[in-house]
Amino acid sequence: MTSNRFRGVLVPVVTPFDADLQADHARFSRFCRYLLDEGADGLAIFGTTSESNSMSGDERMALLDRLLGAGIPADKLMPGCGATSFTEAVRLTRHAIEHGCGGVLMLPPFYYKGVSDDGLFAFFSETIQRIGSDDLKIYLYHIPPVAQVAFSHDLIERLISSYPGTVVGIKDSSGDWSNTKALLDRFPGFDVFAGSEVFLLDTLRAGGAGCITATGSVHVRQIRKIYETWQTAEADEFQAFATAVRKTIQDYPVIPAVKSLIAHYNDDPVWSRVRPPLDELDSERSALLVSRLEKLGFRLSAMMESVG
Amino acid sequence: MTSNRFRGVLVPVVTPFDADLQADHARFSRFCRYLLDEGADGLAIFGTTSESNSMSGDERMALLDRLLGAGIPADKLMPGCGATSFTEAVRLTRHAIEHGCGGVLMLPPFYYKGVSDDGLFAFFSETIQRIGSDDLKIYLYHIPPVAQVAFSHDLIERLISSYPGTVVGIKDSSGDWSNTKALLDRFPGFDVFAGSEVFLLDTLRAGGAGCITATGSVHVRQIRKIYETWQTAEADEFQAFATAVRKTIQDYPVIPAVKSLIAHYNDDPVWSRVRPPLDELDSERSALLVSRLEKLGFRLSAMMESVG
Repeated sequence: MTSNRFRGVLVPVVTPFDADLQADHARFSRFCRYLLDEGADGLAIFGTTSESNSMSGDERMALLDRLLGAGIPADKLMPGCGATSFTEAVRLTRHAIEHGCGGVLMLPPFYYKGVSDDGLFAFFSETIQRIGSDDLKIYLYHIPPVAQVAFSHDLIERLISSYPGTVVGIKDSSGDWSNTKALLDRFPGFDVFAGSEVFLLDTLRAGGAGCITATGSVHVRQIRKIYETWQTAEADEFQAFATAVRKTIQDYPVIPAVKSLIAHYNDDPVWSRVRPPLDELDSERSALLVSRLEKLGFRLSAMMESVG
Repeated sequence: MTSNRFRGVLVPVVTPFDADLQADHARFSRFCRYLLDEGADGLAIFGTTSESNSMSGDERMALLDRLLGAGIPADKLMPGCGATSFTEAVRLTRHAIEHGCGGVLMLPPFYYKGVSDDGLFAFFSETIQRIGSDDLKIYLYHIPPVAQVAFSHDLIERLISSYPGTVVGIKDSSGDWSNTKALLDRFPGFDVFAGSEVFLLDTLRAGGAGCITATGSVHVRQIRKIYETWQTAEADEFQAFATAVRKTIQDYPVIPAVKSLIAHYNDDPVWSRVRPPLDELDSERSALLVSRLEKLGFRLSAMMESVG
């Protein structure tokens, strides 16, 4: 692991949409700035929580351009650049790398199901070789509940040994700690990020790099306390609180729930909006979620000042 | 059902790739011409069998442009224009409609799983309203084994009643005859295509429009005999033969198997090539498939003359 690698708590930033369902560049840039000010170690824009696949490749590239134009530092960005075709993955990734992004998060091709490790290896090989850049750093995006196509450990080993210095890490959104633990045990030096803060402390104690988590858009400062204190006993308390918050949010569809919380704490209903096929959280459930979280002691007053 | 609607046997044409894995425009156009000469009633290019999602949107549009430039009639084309974002679906569909395509085959957005009918309805509404063309004819592409997102019958009813004359049919690739039958019973006047020739005769006898089938790339002339004779007893024999051929091919991964057969009967190994994440059928399995099919009495000599 080198110093220019990502570590800590990264946020797969939610994407605001205007009344015509177009990405709201200005709100997005302001929110990214806020998250960095709150302590986010990096922004994994264009992830699942970002509704990335509900945007076209052209929209994602335009949004990245605007974000950089607004002064968000490229080396803090790990945009999602996966696609079902290697040609599109190459196009998106090349754009990100040429603009200096610190790395890219890459889904496996997720249309065909039951594909072989050979086929997935070939997909990544084509992508990496066609980009042909020493600056390329790929973080594999393992999210079988959504993508339905998974990275086996043998495939990961083959990718790491074939492309050392390029395939440098993974976001494990399997929701299965035993998988994260097995990755940490088998691949020392490979940067393993938990896909949820529920596993952040366990991941750090087992030698992992941090987490990339949907709820980072809501309270990254609080989640980051686990990272700041992980070598102390205090970390367990921060972990318990973050886990309680996460589990409450997970009682609702996570993406609409995260957006509704941002809308609530900024008093800005624009944030509630999602692109179809997702559904917005209705106001009743949204209010219930806020009330349940506040009973846990959850507060976000800082947010209103920074982004409102 | 009006006269300008598709009926009969449509082929989701396989896409040839050159040594650099780029779409081979010339071979593709020749092959489309051959399939129409063989009796295909339409070409559902850019379907699952076409490895459409292994190509970028730009590649698909360029391939369509070249096909039309080569003289393939647009009204015979039903390109796959689905995408995970409505913005990309709008872009692809608008291009197809502006070029006069007879219709488009549209997957549901297939990234997020477990989405609601409301969310799917909103996705199609946004797509249809943004295109805003009376020329638009959408055929829903129901293929839950791959897309993992399905069209419920209530959703279909809502789409048909909200967009009559636009949402005009469906390709049912569920592989479940009871689903096809239920669609035919519930939606008279809606053009139901079986997703496999195995169900072609049953579909026609129950009032369906035909089939759109992967193996049409291999022997559309033979499959079409079922359509030509469906009101006679002779049709059962054609159905039995086509079913036996199909079930043999289905013992192998269907897309690589179909491509290997075209390569074999044209003596043109270029056709065997697939884009990752799919794997090419190895020569041993390919030879076994040919041998098993020929034992059934399968011959494709005409193909060599037309395309070779």
